[in-house]
Amino acid sequence: MQYYPSPEEVIEMDVLIQAVESAFVDHGTGRSVMPPKVYVDLPGGDFRTMPSYIPSLQTAGVKIVNVHPDNRKAGLPTVMAVTVLLDPPTGRPIAVLNATTLTDLRTGASAAVATRALAQKKKGTLGIIGSGRQANSGIRAIPLVFEPEEVLVWSRTRSNAERFAKNHSHLPVRVSDIETVAGADVLLTVTPSKVPLIKDKWISDGAHINAIGADAPGKQEIDPDILQRAFVIVDDMDQATHSGEVNMPIQKGIYSPSRIAGTLGEVLTGAVRRPSPDEITVFDSTGLSIMDLAAAHLAIGKGKVIDLPFMENTGMSDDPGVRE
Amino acid sequence: MQYYPSPEEVIEMDVLIQAVESAFVDHGTGRSVMPPKVYVDLPGGDFRTMPSYIPSLQTAGVKIVNVHPDNRKAGLPTVMAVTVLLDPPTGRPIAVLNATTLTDLRTGASAAVATRALAQKKKGTLGIIGSGRQANSGIRAIPLVFEPEEVLVWSRTRSNAERFAKNHSHLPVRVSDIETVAGADVLLTVTPSKVPLIKDKWISDGAHINAIGADAPGKQEIDPDILQRAFVIVDDMDQATHSGEVNMPIQKGIYSPSRIAGTLGEVLTGAVRRPSPDEITVFDSTGLSIMDLAAAHLAIGKGKVIDLPFMENTGMSDDPGVRE
Repeated sequence: MQYYPSPEEVIEMDVLIQAVESAFVDHGTGRSVMPPKVYVDLPGGDFRTMPSYIPSLQTAGVKIVNVHPDNRKAGLPTVMAVTVLLDPPTGRPIAVLNATTLTDLRTGASAAVATRALAQKKKGTLGIIGSGRQANSGIRAIPLVFEPEEVLVWSRTRSNAERFAKNHSHLPVRVSDIETVAGADVLLTVTPSKVPLIKDKWISDGAHINAIGADAPGKQEIDPDILQRAFVIVDDMDQATHSGEVNMPIQKGIYSPSRIAGTLGEVLTGAVRRPSPDEITVFDSTGLSIMDLAAAHLAIGKGKVIDLPFMENTGMSDDPGVRE
Repeated sequence: MQYYPSPEEVIEMDVLIQAVESAFVDHGTGRSVMPPKVYVDLPGGDFRTMPSYIPSLQTAGVKIVNVHPDNRKAGLPTVMAVTVLLDPPTGRPIAVLNATTLTDLRTGASAAVATRALAQKKKGTLGIIGSGRQANSGIRAIPLVFEPEEVLVWSRTRSNAERFAKNHSHLPVRVSDIETVAGADVLLTVTPSKVPLIKDKWISDGAHINAIGADAPGKQEIDPDILQRAFVIVDDMDQATHSGEVNMPIQKGIYSPSRIAGTLGEVLTGAVRRPSPDEITVFDSTGLSIMDLAAAHLAIGKGKVIDLPFMENTGMSDDPGVRE
């Protein structure tokens, strides 16, 4: 068994986008196994357990990830993660990865996959609502599939948006008001909001929205009226209806799961067709274990590795009597 | 974060029995959080993801464990496991443990807890059906709570039973036929059987049966007629009805979940009363994540430890912009 302390160092974003896209294709064709993630509440937050198996990668495993919104005060990230990979034919644990930064990267990569598959335009304005870690990975990933003539960013705390713009000054980024940002051709929402921030009337015709922030029951970022008139694609039907952008509108009875057009995997395989050019598209992302496994798989055998004794301590056999 | 390659080396069975009993008490009083384990099928086996949170131990985490029956042919254990522990107030991963042998030990400990709580006699004959790793941990644990005047063992392969008896020659162990073994005062069944091995007529009045082997849908070890007339206690209602000894009889409609008397935790707290002395008692065990966390918790800070860089690589903050 090996530990990977910084697997993100060997990950190229363009390669990750392809890997995540392949994982979605496997998901869309039923060639992966992924139960819905399981939530356990903790004081000040929760943790999620995310198992899956991707036969095409010969990879199985589990990501374990917390969300503790007040961690910043203690100098810790809100979200930390480890991924454990198993060898499918034997079940042997083969790797433990620090998946904290990988989680950001694969989330950004999934927004790029959805943007490439769903956005009507190939270039235009990119709007980002939020300025945290997922905003950082989004602005790294989306420009690889959508040419941003301008990047507009809004954050509840204006100084955070300004810092974000400064940190990405290699792109034409500027801070703007939420209404203007929301009118972008491609929109990325990456906030922890529990109330809709984005009004329906702000959205441009034919816009594509990556609704990333809502990933737990009770969270939502965009006006349910947007969902009512949009072509809504989810990452996974079970997870999205439970904890995605659609979860609150469904719970309130103002949106029906039957209105969801399909999954991103189904769009990628052609099982679900893209809508007409002036229709708004929404990618409702909750984050899938298969994305984490695809990202982890890219890192195996590369970069910093610490060998961990494992098999030496298990007896190498369960032949009766060996242990006593 | 730290890795524990051999946490079993610091675990005393009597201490573990107490720790597992405390975890069951917390479970019985609703003071722990434990979703049912999640199964993912793999080629040649499966793996199970088992998250939980025990507030009284300030411990949260996940055990990841496989079952691959043909692993022996490849010189690997059938079952291998790792446990990841998190710090509840921050969600930070604090430890990864090789939980392979810990899994055996905590299973044996749980049989001892159930035997102490349910067996009518405090000494007598101990019968063991099976001779693998779980039989080994059972014969280490049960004699700490039940004085075995004689230990009888049966295995499908007689030479395995003979080796088991030889390996435990500090106890009065002998190999016998299945009918005689099944007639013991305290019985431990630890086979991977999918058909009932133990006939109703073989069971002695007032016997206590630890039915441990059935831990996945389709598995069963004892005649459903035994369940019909016994006082049946499960480790967890959801898990047992899904994958415990009762799962097949329930699926076939010959046993009703409403007949289950309660959980081991409820017996320990007195919420469910033990039956009259001549009644047969059955402990239907599927294995709980809280048992794994209780066992792992005992090992933290002791024995061999390998430090793993984790926080150094996560940026220590998700303050926007820090990562770019």
